[in-house]
Amino acid sequence: MRILYHLWLSPHCRKVRVVLSEKKLEFGLQTENTWQRRPEFLALNPAGEVPVLLEPDGTSVSDSQTICEYLEEVAPYPPILPTDPVQRAEARRITAWFDMKFSSEVSENLIGEKIMKRFLKTDAPNSALIRAGKKNIHYHLEYIGWLSERRNWLAGDELSIADISAAAHLSSIDYLDDVPWEEHPPAKEWYMRIKSRPSFRAILADHLPGEPPPKHYANLDF
Amino acid sequence: MRILYHLWLSPHCRKVRVVLSEKKLEFGLQTENTWQRRPEFLALNPAGEVPVLLEPDGTSVSDSQTICEYLEEVAPYPPILPTDPVQRAEARRITAWFDMKFSSEVSENLIGEKIMKRFLKTDAPNSALIRAGKKNIHYHLEYIGWLSERRNWLAGDELSIADISAAAHLSSIDYLDDVPWEEHPPAKEWYMRIKSRPSFRAILADHLPGEPPPKHYANLDF
Repeated sequence: MRILYHLWLSPHCRKVRVVLSEKKLEFGLQTENTWQRRPEFLALNPAGEVPVLLEPDGTSVSDSQTICEYLEEVAPYPPILPTDPVQRAEARRITAWFDMKFSSEVSENLIGEKIMKRFLKTDAPNSALIRAGKKNIHYHLEYIGWLSERRNWLAGDELSIADISAAAHLSSIDYLDDVPWEEHPPAKEWYMRIKSRPSFRAILADHLPGEPPPKHYANLDF
Repeated sequence: MRILYHLWLSPHCRKVRVVLSEKKLEFGLQTENTWQRRPEFLALNPAGEVPVLLEPDGTSVSDSQTICEYLEEVAPYPPILPTDPVQRAEARRITAWFDMKFSSEVSENLIGEKIMKRFLKTDAPNSALIRAGKKNIHYHLEYIGWLSERRNWLAGDELSIADISAAAHLSSIDYLDDVPWEEHPPAKEWYMRIKSRPSFRAILADHLPGEPPPKHYANLDF
């Protein structure tokens, strides 16, 4: 069976989990405490980061977007990218927006400061960074709303990796109860739609010991 | 004609310039001072970042890896990715390594501090970050050497986007004379090979006003 090395609230890992589920590919989850820098794990991915997908034949694939492109090539149905090159580029552009821009402006500030620092018992969370993350998220929710009011899904008519990446990030922030959904109804409507997909169920069942999610987290009608 | 909106020493822009040249696609360069946040440019790429590729029909494509994947789809020859999915994943993994890991550990510390801050006349360069960039580069040059001694090119037998991305970053750092080539002969041998390709010529002719490159920068036998 495929094994996905991951960390529970990592948006990049959640993105791959949802893609695997959309494609109905069975996989097992293996938590990897990347900060321990296990030699066996570094042999799979010298960058020392999750997610890493380990195939039954021993092939390992690293980097979340690389894993998703690989899965699209070896298991094309249902697709997570459109067929037209310009539309594929649009889906990849929005995916990169969330994987890089949203990640550095929101996810790293909130998940990095609130969860990882507590977990790693390093220095205290930086409240200025947490404030920045909470401020920055509004602009991204506006962008999601703007896109989803003009298109059925973020990159076009069909659900794509762009929606999955955006929802993966937002689901992790929502676990921390830091998404101001009520101020952004169009983004909330879009999230309700993706949240109700079967591929999202496992994500909504996540439960970090000592850090329970808010009540609305797994609620499909939140 | 295609137009590439770019900044001169941006590794991500150089990566796209080399890919366009490898594929023998004609294009014009348009410098975009992204910090001015021109509304016409933000309409092309709401992220406000370069590179942005503008096609003759008005289609715009943003984000360096998205542009490269798009070019591979619309102009497949010569390819910048292998055909086998596992080998494609390896090329994309190494590309992501340089576009993200090398970028944040080396390029942003050196180009960001030494060039962008002077150019933008914001605060003084942070010497701790510059020291960190100069320290971190050794590990990456070792990795390039390790890969290129085991394979013909970084991701396998053929030149790929992995080599182009790595060389794009190193060429920008080399413009600042901050690559300790003499301490890393295998990496230097690899760079000599990619530097001598016709697709690299335009990069080597770059000349930033008031910031000339070191003598060896354009020398194929440095």
